[in-house]
Amino acid sequence: MNSKFSKRTNNVKASETREILKVTERPEIISFAGGLPAPELFPVETLKEACEIVLKEMGQSALQYATTEGFNPLRNIIIDRMKALDIEASLENILVTAGSQQGLDLVGKLFIDEGDTIICESPTYLAAINAFKVYDAKFAEVAMDDDGMIMEELEKTLINNPKAKFIYTIPDFQNPTGRTMSLERRKRLIELANQYDVLIVEDNPYGAVRFAGQDLPPVKAFDKEGRVIYLSTFSKIFCPGLRLGWMCANAEFTEKFVAFKQSADLHTNVFAQMITAKHIELHDLEEHVKEIKAVYLHRRGLMLKCIKEEFPEGLKYTSPEGGLFIWVELPSHIDSKELFSKCLENNVAFVPGHPFFPNGGCTNTFRLNYSNMPDEKIIEGIKRLGTAIKSMM
Amino acid sequence: MNSKFSKRTNNVKASETREILKVTERPEIISFAGGLPAPELFPVETLKEACEIVLKEMGQSALQYATTEGFNPLRNIIIDRMKALDIEASLENILVTAGSQQGLDLVGKLFIDEGDTIICESPTYLAAINAFKVYDAKFAEVAMDDDGMIMEELEKTLINNPKAKFIYTIPDFQNPTGRTMSLERRKRLIELANQYDVLIVEDNPYGAVRFAGQDLPPVKAFDKEGRVIYLSTFSKIFCPGLRLGWMCANAEFTEKFVAFKQSADLHTNVFAQMITAKHIELHDLEEHVKEIKAVYLHRRGLMLKCIKEEFPEGLKYTSPEGGLFIWVELPSHIDSKELFSKCLENNVAFVPGHPFFPNGGCTNTFRLNYSNMPDEKIIEGIKRLGTAIKSMM
Repeated sequence: MNSKFSKRTNNVKASETREILKVTERPEIISFAGGLPAPELFPVETLKEACEIVLKEMGQSALQYATTEGFNPLRNIIIDRMKALDIEASLENILVTAGSQQGLDLVGKLFIDEGDTIICESPTYLAAINAFKVYDAKFAEVAMDDDGMIMEELEKTLINNPKAKFIYTIPDFQNPTGRTMSLERRKRLIELANQYDVLIVEDNPYGAVRFAGQDLPPVKAFDKEGRVIYLSTFSKIFCPGLRLGWMCANAEFTEKFVAFKQSADLHTNVFAQMITAKHIELHDLEEHVKEIKAVYLHRRGLMLKCIKEEFPEGLKYTSPEGGLFIWVELPSHIDSKELFSKCLENNVAFVPGHPFFPNGGCTNTFRLNYSNMPDEKIIEGIKRLGTAIKSMM
Repeated sequence: MNSKFSKRTNNVKASETREILKVTERPEIISFAGGLPAPELFPVETLKEACEIVLKEMGQSALQYATTEGFNPLRNIIIDRMKALDIEASLENILVTAGSQQGLDLVGKLFIDEGDTIICESPTYLAAINAFKVYDAKFAEVAMDDDGMIMEELEKTLINNPKAKFIYTIPDFQNPTGRTMSLERRKRLIELANQYDVLIVEDNPYGAVRFAGQDLPPVKAFDKEGRVIYLSTFSKIFCPGLRLGWMCANAEFTEKFVAFKQSADLHTNVFAQMITAKHIELHDLEEHVKEIKAVYLHRRGLMLKCIKEEFPEGLKYTSPEGGLFIWVELPSHIDSKELFSKCLENNVAFVPGHPFFPNGGCTNTFRLNYSNMPDEKIIEGIKRLGTAIKSMM
């Protein structure tokens, strides 16, 4: 049988990381591999109440087809969240998506033609790489330091890639590095984007989960020209299983995203939108986020303390002020894939770093997640990991 | 600002029908335009119970990230539904999607390169046309009669389009025509597909909602080579707002659909999957579908009776044995867009037929929906429509 797959199918292999995550699901393994929020903080009890009220008050419309743009009370909640971040928005700027992952797919659909270049941080979010590869993107990586993307490197990249479609950035507590772009660089980023007339896709799933340091405005807060497409999600501040994210973009872009979304899935689950809006109406979301922050602050602190005690001296690792991840750099002769195999034998896991580099390389890095694990497992897991690293030094 | 949209953006205009549907939402209008199930039949009360049980028994996993393939108990329910239709399937063949619309998008991603030809019924489902146009498809239309796609015409089309990527068909109570492909033609369709080595995409959202005539096996029931990709949905038998559909395909295709779905939205809302599975466990879905069928049978009968009484003699219209739609053919000199404008003045609406023809034409047709309207509105609406048509004869 001639299957005649599309050319783009060659770009989409079963994700290596996905296979890794499957292995790490074995119950005996202490896994720092996933990017899962702490499930014990999910608002299970209060969501029962929200479900009951929504089904009682508007059950028929909660279960019927709905508009592609999203449920207006939820969009208004999103508008308020945007305004609190100094982003002006009205309904014409907001599209509710099936998680911010769908926002990445819609960005790919609207902007990427075969062979187009996307400028991104090095390393960057794996599932964004995959989403853009579906549309045959190429990637120009920009080096980072602890203040995020290095702006001199970005400018060189812009000069070398005058037709780049957009700059993709995760300014807050980046996945995978946990790094945050400094205020100065945010301002410089938008200046450069204006000067070189390039769009910015600001992916900001973690910004609301800052547990240390000072809040910074999103890049879009400095955008006077409507060139920043802002993506965010309820996954990290409420719960990911409901698959609710949003895009905030200029009205022209939003209209086109809506048309593409209509072809992709008609609209986002409206019952999920309604129970989330009802829950936020009844229970202060900021109070809930405070609880999340307190737990993550504690777990990050514990993991860093354990790393300091258990890892060999001289390893580099990040110290995030929010979000879910720590990034570790091994001596250049250690391959984190080999370390991964060794660790699996000792029932501890992480994600090797190389898939986060769209053009390959940097095999001496890995990502650790601290949000999903109780104290005793953090302590024991980092101990096992330290032993494995030492054995390879 | 240089927006640099992708080339595919030219193919995706704000859907004309979408604009039509917006107009018809005005409360004073009797609208036969949408394709909405009867909301008074949604299982609102029993879903409350399912929500409570799911949140009580597995609240944390209902709200956490989940696997792309779908929630296994729901996939097993789907496998049982497939087996009841003589389709052999196991977990490796089933992917839960965000409505069957997402299945269409994934089919586009996996198979369609720029300029590829899709063979389809003439007319065909508008949102499938749009989903495939996102990937720059062209369409070769095959004429239908009351037994569905005409096989002699299909064979000619296959000969003329030897590189066609797949045949797209809605065999049961087709949208927009309400027509059903005969048993003989289903068998011939799979013979031709085998002979000309072409895939079939069988879109079957309505098959379970047959309220008259004899059940027919789906095309996939005759597929010995794994060349039929079968799409269906809980939207017409349970509720559409939860956005739950599925794909049933050979294991190789399914694995690739999973990879594309992962990039598109990570996974389908798992709470929605769990409450649907729980509801089906607790309440017989077939009993519920019986209620739906009884109501639709009645409404279709009433609408056909009214059409017979109120429309001018000699108009052609279909008499569906299931599904949601009746298709009307006007004398060739009447443009259904003009009729639509006239009808809006009289507060009654339908969908003009021409957007269902991917290559244009057939402006003398329109689609009527009967599932969403109480008796008195069917009676009054068809009366107004008849008056408008008569004034244009």
